[in-house]
Amino acid sequence: MSKPSPAPVLIVGSMALDDLELPSGNFKDVVGGSAVFSAMATSLFAPAQMVGVVGRDFPTKVLEGLQARGVDTDGVEVVEGRTFKWAGRYAANLGSRETLDTQLNVFADFAPKIPEKFRQSRFVLLGNIHPALQLEVLSQMQAPAFVAADTMNFWIEGERPTLLRVLERIECLIINDEELRQLAEEHNIRRAAAKVLAMGPKRLVVKRGEYGALLFDQGRICFVPAYPLETELDPTGAGDSFAGALLGYVARAGQTDTATLRRALVHATTVASFCVEGVGTARLAEVHGDMLGARLSELRALATLEG
Amino acid sequence: MSKPSPAPVLIVGSMALDDLELPSGNFKDVVGGSAVFSAMATSLFAPAQMVGVVGRDFPTKVLEGLQARGVDTDGVEVVEGRTFKWAGRYAANLGSRETLDTQLNVFADFAPKIPEKFRQSRFVLLGNIHPALQLEVLSQMQAPAFVAADTMNFWIEGERPTLLRVLERIECLIINDEELRQLAEEHNIRRAAAKVLAMGPKRLVVKRGEYGALLFDQGRICFVPAYPLETELDPTGAGDSFAGALLGYVARAGQTDTATLRRALVHATTVASFCVEGVGTARLAEVHGDMLGARLSELRALATLEG
Repeated sequence: MSKPSPAPVLIVGSMALDDLELPSGNFKDVVGGSAVFSAMATSLFAPAQMVGVVGRDFPTKVLEGLQARGVDTDGVEVVEGRTFKWAGRYAANLGSRETLDTQLNVFADFAPKIPEKFRQSRFVLLGNIHPALQLEVLSQMQAPAFVAADTMNFWIEGERPTLLRVLERIECLIINDEELRQLAEEHNIRRAAAKVLAMGPKRLVVKRGEYGALLFDQGRICFVPAYPLETELDPTGAGDSFAGALLGYVARAGQTDTATLRRALVHATTVASFCVEGVGTARLAEVHGDMLGARLSELRALATLEG
Repeated sequence: MSKPSPAPVLIVGSMALDDLELPSGNFKDVVGGSAVFSAMATSLFAPAQMVGVVGRDFPTKVLEGLQARGVDTDGVEVVEGRTFKWAGRYAANLGSRETLDTQLNVFADFAPKIPEKFRQSRFVLLGNIHPALQLEVLSQMQAPAFVAADTMNFWIEGERPTLLRVLERIECLIINDEELRQLAEEHNIRRAAAKVLAMGPKRLVVKRGEYGALLFDQGRICFVPAYPLETELDPTGAGDSFAGALLGYVARAGQTDTATLRRALVHATTVASFCVEGVGTARLAEVHGDMLGARLSELRALATLEG
């Protein structure tokens, strides 16, 4: 008897060619964007279905590479113009970054169109895009069972009413601790989590970078540390690969109970740790099952409280 | 057969009457200082022996309270003058603080004299005092088996050569992540830890506040989360109660292997979490075995990666 193949994860988000000023050097036109990082991470566990937009300048071989990993890119529109670009400079310790330039380009008119064959997908990851676009995606889905969404300070501040409508319709919100505090208008993480869960999502995942992640679910709190890296090159996309791995793991498990989500978080922090070890998607592209398994074992060993 | 009583922990550090400006209000002459917080935490697990200095203004009943908890205060000198005072203001979110005033008072001439009866103690906690004083303490001890020390940015910057001599003579350094980075002159926590361990201490404990703590020991890394608090009133002394609980646990266990230290860290982050729930030592004073046990269970449940 063969194992049933995992259900696919529909991923909607940005696709980008970023210019990165990193302590290790300056890099131009680095392939990135939330949908790209998430889809690469998801594909370690389950098939991904990608919806996004790129310009003619986006390398065809990147799309081919994604397809070779089990990512269905039929939802990626290639249109006239240039791909979205974020240009940023990271601090010497990688602890903070500043945006030097944002060129929306073809992303400015992005209106996600979910291909017919994707509309029945049960697992959905709404990357960090305008909450109105996140709602547009949901309106095209037939019966999503587990919808997770990311967002950012920009939408929390500028599009709160629309974002609140998104929150009412999702199962799981995945944000970082600063976004949580801003959304809840409350500094204490635990009280902030309670406030955000009252806004709609049944589960809340809080990303804390090098400190790991928290899951708030059914009145329980689960804590997962991050793998302590010796080599940190580029944090870009770590949060997106975290979310992608989380959804991929859940889709593969075919279950969404707390215990499964907790295991998904362990896998998600581990995949994100690889992401930081390379510039852009370089290191993430190298990850395979054995590497992941070895690091998961290390993470479990260091996080065991007894023994 | 009765269990042998635990070995005592010798604790040397500051004793203070602090003025605290907290989000919850302003508090004058709050009993504090590293030796006080540490001894209170130690006494939850093992007898403490306290060495410090106070002025005539230090409340006698505080010393009596410590004695009632199993703290031997015979090493506390009461001298003419006023007790050391730190005056500080915490940010609204308690995430940062500024020093408004430091009055060394009787602490300016502190020269720790270890009472004869304390000199054979095997477990020693050198609180955050001038490294030259830490060396003076060690020179008075006969055969310390497990010496742990704390320090701070001020000594790392201004007294590095003396501090390095301390590091050569201790078993365990207990500092926060910023101090680690400063001491190692290296931002990456893992590489910084390797550099500091090469300076002498056999084990390194890194405090990360609300994010928990890391233990670097024998080439292994152990990670312990902090209990996520719903009520945070005053972080003053959290690090000192963490260190005191760690030493108390180790002394009670009578063993210093990695597994024991890891369990000690779990107890230490838990005791420190209580400290933050009250102003000064108020909440720490209320902690008893059942409270501690209940929170330890909660912490273990939320930190379990599987299940």
